Amino acid sequence: MNSIKEAREAAVAARALYREGTVSPTAGHAPGMTQANMISLPREWAYDFLLFAQRNPQACPILDVTEPGSHSTFLAYKADLRTDLPLYRVWRDGELAEEVTDVRDIWAQHTDLVTFLIGCSFTFETDLLNAGIDIRHISENCNVPMYRTNRVCRPAGRLQGEMVVSMRPVAADRVADAVKITARYPGVHGAPVHVGEPGLLGIKDISRPDFGDAVTIKPGEIPVFWACGVTPQAVVMASRVPFAVSHAPGHMFITDVPDGHYHV
Amino acid sequence: MNSIKEAREAAVAARALYREGTVSPTAGHAPGMTQANMISLPREWAYDFLLFAQRNPQACPILDVTEPGSHSTFLAYKADLRTDLPLYRVWRDGELAEEVTDVRDIWAQHTDLVTFLIGCSFTFETDLLNAGIDIRHISENCNVPMYRTNRVCRPAGRLQGEMVVSMRPVAADRVADAVKITARYPGVHGAPVHVGEPGLLGIKDISRPDFGDAVTIKPGEIPVFWACGVTPQAVVMASRVPFAVSHAPGHMFITDVPDGHYHV
Repeated sequence: MNSIKEAREAAVAARALYREGTVSPTAGHAPGMTQANMISLPREWAYDFLLFAQRNPQACPILDVTEPGSHSTFLAYKADLRTDLPLYRVWRDGELAEEVTDVRDIWAQHTDLVTFLIGCSFTFETDLLNAGIDIRHISENCNVPMYRTNRVCRPAGRLQGEMVVSMRPVAADRVADAVKITARYPGVHGAPVHVGEPGLLGIKDISRPDFGDAVTIKPGEIPVFWACGVTPQAVVMASRVPFAVSHAPGHMFITDVPDGHYHV
Repeated sequence: MNSIKEAREAAVAARALYREGTVSPTAGHAPGMTQANMISLPREWAYDFLLFAQRNPQACPILDVTEPGSHSTFLAYKADLRTDLPLYRVWRDGELAEEVTDVRDIWAQHTDLVTFLIGCSFTFETDLLNAGIDIRHISENCNVPMYRTNRVCRPAGRLQGEMVVSMRPVAADRVADAVKITARYPGVHGAPVHVGEPGLLGIKDISRPDFGDAVTIKPGEIPVFWACGVTPQAVVMASRVPFAVSHAPGHMFITDVPDGHYHV
């Protein structure tokens, strides 16, 4: 087990690598440090989004909101939100326009972007691992599988859409443990929203995630679904927001905040 | 122990009494149903307030936000936020202008008020009582004591101010239980922000609360402090907000949501 100091140093080092252009999913990097989803919207959309997050706290638990135009956050000392994530997505009129590794030019053009940092289920993965629960996308060294669902979020202003979920296969006799452990992290999605039966969420083929990579589901394992911070991207699409920047799924912002901070 | 159905009926009956003009602190009424703090602000202040709440979740855990001008909430079927609290406060330029039992005329004059319903520590009192922890303001049949503190909230936009806390005396050998129980209610203030030593919070005389009533602290009991949903009123004062309506301290909005809903 790393010390907090080592984990913080790993977070700083990871951000520095991404700043220099390294592209990689962040699960398992800087273990013990909270990772966050990011979405940046013009100031004129900030109230709608903050309200949407309040109304859908499982999908959009907000960890920090920046001042308009700012690229710093109190979640990580000296971090630059324009460069310190491995991969960004730029959205125009609700459609994915491009994926880039640096958005400094965009901040220069759109000077009033408000950035929302949103809890990520990676935060509770260290506790799951410590409880002896395998995290398949870590053991298979890929991105967590994520799926669009038919579960409608509570709308807010001009924003509406369906929940996106992440999935982890859990042995049937450890599902209760996985629920208990994650329930105590309400700030980073909390307890699962659904256990088993992907079809009831509108997921037609569990082997074909909408974001991230497919993982093996072994015999005796149940697919367990948590609300996912990629939901805002689905909402940006469904609501045809004129302009937005987000992280690329699985390519998160690594903060300086220990996971335990969000444990209640 | 009442059933949920009986508790809901008690909530509906309590709201009806307040609607007809009854004035009374709400602690202990409709036990098992969540009570909420209320603050209504002009639409133009709503983003600042929602951001303030996000940045100070222990003091301002938001349970619902209405549409501008609306007087309904999804927390209670058919409730009218203009009449169904026992006592309201009207604020002008950060000063208390009047206390009234009905604010329908104010909604008619100020047509874009956005109402925030904020978690209240009464929600976890049923669990504390069930654990055999005496709730002094209930056993002494008065309002919970609340104090201004020197603890500065994270500002947001034009809003700033200090945290207000509620206090419950707890026997020294039950303090840990009180912490454990309330920590699992992060949506309604969660764990205490301070245990013992009122002076460190800037409280000069524990027998003279700033809001509510003094309660007896017996030998061997420790004053335990939770962040309080009256904080927004202190913030309205400190920030000289031009216009606001709130509940009167201790005179809460009783919802139809069982307390257990906020347990994680």
